[in-house]
Amino acid sequence: MISSTANEKIKHVTELVKNAKARRKEGLFVTEGVRIASEIPQNALVECFISDDFSWDETADKVFLYDVDPTVVSSAVFRKMSDTRNPQGIICVCRQNVFPDPYDILSGSGPRRLLILEGIQDPGNLGTMVRTAEGAGFNAIYADNNTVDVYNPKVIRSTMGSVFRVPVVYTADLFELVDRLKSLSVTVYAAHLNGTADYREVTYGDRIAFLIGNEGSGLSDAICEKADRLVRIPMHGKLESLNAAVAAAVLMYGI
Amino acid sequence: MISSTANEKIKHVTELVKNAKARRKEGLFVTEGVRIASEIPQNALVECFISDDFSWDETADKVFLYDVDPTVVSSAVFRKMSDTRNPQGIICVCRQNVFPDPYDILSGSGPRRLLILEGIQDPGNLGTMVRTAEGAGFNAIYADNNTVDVYNPKVIRSTMGSVFRVPVVYTADLFELVDRLKSLSVTVYAAHLNGTADYREVTYGDRIAFLIGNEGSGLSDAICEKADRLVRIPMHGKLESLNAAVAAAVLMYGI
Repeated sequence: MISSTANEKIKHVTELVKNAKARRKEGLFVTEGVRIASEIPQNALVECFISDDFSWDETADKVFLYDVDPTVVSSAVFRKMSDTRNPQGIICVCRQNVFPDPYDILSGSGPRRLLILEGIQDPGNLGTMVRTAEGAGFNAIYADNNTVDVYNPKVIRSTMGSVFRVPVVYTADLFELVDRLKSLSVTVYAAHLNGTADYREVTYGDRIAFLIGNEGSGLSDAICEKADRLVRIPMHGKLESLNAAVAAAVLMYGI
Repeated sequence: MISSTANEKIKHVTELVKNAKARRKEGLFVTEGVRIASEIPQNALVECFISDDFSWDETADKVFLYDVDPTVVSSAVFRKMSDTRNPQGIICVCRQNVFPDPYDILSGSGPRRLLILEGIQDPGNLGTMVRTAEGAGFNAIYADNNTVDVYNPKVIRSTMGSVFRVPVVYTADLFELVDRLKSLSVTVYAAHLNGTADYREVTYGDRIAFLIGNEGSGLSDAICEKADRLVRIPMHGKLESLNAAVAAAVLMYGI
């Protein structure tokens, strides 16, 4: 049993929880809690830590550790590793998804539904978008480097496991990405307050993408110019905009 | 200028920020920040506190204090009053909405669209629902007493001002409420994972309500039995459910 926070394994987990660069460099991330542990696919699970007071109750029975031997940690050390107020006693280190070719998902014909994110800052919003994308049957999410890291613990938590199933691909050049998607027969719709088309009145084709912008400032003018069409979600009242994750959901479920 | 946290006015604000019971007893709540301050209607504004380093820049110029004289507070005291990491230097005390008759909104004929919440716990979810309700043109939200207080500072923040425009009415008896709404010709739809009807295939009438349940456990069986119909949002993938605020948004925009 590990009973010191000075232990190298513990320091490693803490670094992965706190530091996006370390996560990226190592291609790893950390999940916390029973529910999400039960959703980890075999090829993603690297390591598992359980608190010495962790009980394998009915819920935890759904956690399948494959051939990974869990490392037991004293409850005091576990509380320090944990990113939550009420730790559930199980933390896993997982492999990030790798996308050698970000356009792979577009090979072949057939319907493709994509989300493209510019500068999403709130971890809860990103996590919720990943979750909704799975529910709405969207195939992938592309995001610029100003979007919060999808492997941030708060994002992971709000994906409810979807992070293992929906590809989220980051790109340094969103302009190039949009050009490339268009060349691959994807019609790109930008969600915009000044959109000329009501999203409910658009006839969507088989290969589409929705561009969603930053919570405060929306999409940049430059990226909107690249879009095929600006679509608007009609709004009553005095409201200026919807929450970004809600706007994405309304569009994804509205096609 | 107030420069001590022992000042009665400061203690009063802190109490209102932290304590839902105090808020309810006094019928008051606290907003923080420039943006929301600019949305306070005249009849709701009671008091205003500004930090001594607050600058009336262009954004703050939209804040209209009516005949309320702002109280200046030292920046050190302001930081202690503040509920946020980066205080914007303006805190307002506001009157809660009062609903002598919670069914008033249903008097007369014409379309009425309502949301009924059972046990919503996450402040961000509730705030987002209030915001989306305004955008979708919903007339009011009813909530049981297990739902988080709409005047909680985190809820207020995520309403983006909608809290001043969308009536949110709490009730001790959600069963009675649903019965009463039904007697007032409202058709009540419960959002349920096992709903028999796809929400997109329902023909909605003029007077409708959507029942949305707790984030973890959904709606109780007892309240579902009271609903006229259980509706389902179809889901792809392995996802068990959508985020509660997203589910509410998809339904509100889907009618």
